[in-house]
Amino acid sequence: MVTKNQIKLVVSLKQKKYRSQHRLFVVEGEKVVNELLQAGAKPFKVFVDDAVLMGKFKDADVVPSKILKQMSSLTRPNGVLGVFYMTESQKDIVDDWVVVLDAVRDPGNLGTIIRLCDWFGVTQLVCSPDTVDCYNPKVLQATMGSIARVNIVYVDLEDYLQKTNLPIYGAYMEGKPVYEADLAKKGVLVMGNEAKGISDEVGQFVTKRISIPQFGAATAESLNVATATAILLNDIRR
Amino acid sequence: MVTKNQIKLVVSLKQKKYRSQHRLFVVEGEKVVNELLQAGAKPFKVFVDDAVLMGKFKDADVVPSKILKQMSSLTRPNGVLGVFYMTESQKDIVDDWVVVLDAVRDPGNLGTIIRLCDWFGVTQLVCSPDTVDCYNPKVLQATMGSIARVNIVYVDLEDYLQKTNLPIYGAYMEGKPVYEADLAKKGVLVMGNEAKGISDEVGQFVTKRISIPQFGAATAESLNVATATAILLNDIRR
Repeated sequence: MVTKNQIKLVVSLKQKKYRSQHRLFVVEGEKVVNELLQAGAKPFKVFVDDAVLMGKFKDADVVPSKILKQMSSLTRPNGVLGVFYMTESQKDIVDDWVVVLDAVRDPGNLGTIIRLCDWFGVTQLVCSPDTVDCYNPKVLQATMGSIARVNIVYVDLEDYLQKTNLPIYGAYMEGKPVYEADLAKKGVLVMGNEAKGISDEVGQFVTKRISIPQFGAATAESLNVATATAILLNDIRR
Repeated sequence: MVTKNQIKLVVSLKQKKYRSQHRLFVVEGEKVVNELLQAGAKPFKVFVDDAVLMGKFKDADVVPSKILKQMSSLTRPNGVLGVFYMTESQKDIVDDWVVVLDAVRDPGNLGTIIRLCDWFGVTQLVCSPDTVDCYNPKVLQATMGSIARVNIVYVDLEDYLQKTNLPIYGAYMEGKPVYEADLAKKGVLVMGNEAKGISDEVGQFVTKRISIPQFGAATAESLNVATATAILLNDIRR
């Protein structure tokens, strides 16, 4: 059984303010809920709108489709909604490659970058406070279960970059071609905002400016930040 | 002045059937309309909803916002809507790398892949007939002006692959790591459907199965097809 207070709580989690207050976030869909459970994320509650699905989730609550639709952030809810506890972020300095995001605003981009960190074994993702919230439903829809395996912190980047001993690489349109760059075994990779790139404040800490060479007509749009992150992480790990 | 027939025509172009019949497609936004014009695409008509913007486009027609909203595929129309003539696709065998898509269904993925082809100087993109239409508004929104610089054909892939003399590479989860693959100077890169990968029918023509090695937990979702294309094209061109 679902209580009125639970419904109210889940609906409130659409807003960042209440996610931070309750330290809870919502993911939707059988696959991603299962992935999070398998990755060891701690569930607060799983809701399903169909008794058939319930057997697949321990302690799931069946709710009418109408209620699930109310709780859901999707235009077409898919029958499974999981509420999970946020994990405490570890702010330790990590001894491997770290990805740093300077004001990445698009939820799909952040979601893809989290998935890429997971794929390439980057366990620490450091975001500026003005980067989109990683528990935003659209981010979670794009990350799949990766959110449980990548440690994400929101900190002042100038503070963070000042403290690290690792070489700091930054992606710039006019940087050195990544093929020629001397990529260290450990380092920090800074990726900038979709429209403005890396800010001057953050850029002053970047010791090596790198770029992805273009082979087509010079008029092409720059690469999307998630695409560029994919290429650079692949080059870093190869 | 816009006529009733013109409005009806533009609205009809939301459907693939009418785009094919009239050989016209629609893009929206000042930036992308400008990019297409600069890339040499032939405009049928540019509509703007603001006299201020009109000065920026030769022969643009001013229409009331209400009408532009009717013509637009966007939830929030942005004031500029361009109708362009499709170019005749060239079905010549290209003497360079060619990207082949086997049933890529997501418009955002196709849009990103077109942009990537443009970035990496791949001028020929060959799609299976069940790949999403490249003139779909959501594809065009993701490609920006690249649609004018990449030649896109929809053909039977078995026919096409049978005829080519180039080595045929295909992206598989269990392929040979791309770092170890012997990448030719010219070749065909086949990318598969988002859920099913490359079909068996197309796969029989693939002579070299390649993959992008994973460094994180083995449970991570596979890479998105557009992301994988980015990494592979970068490796091909390096």
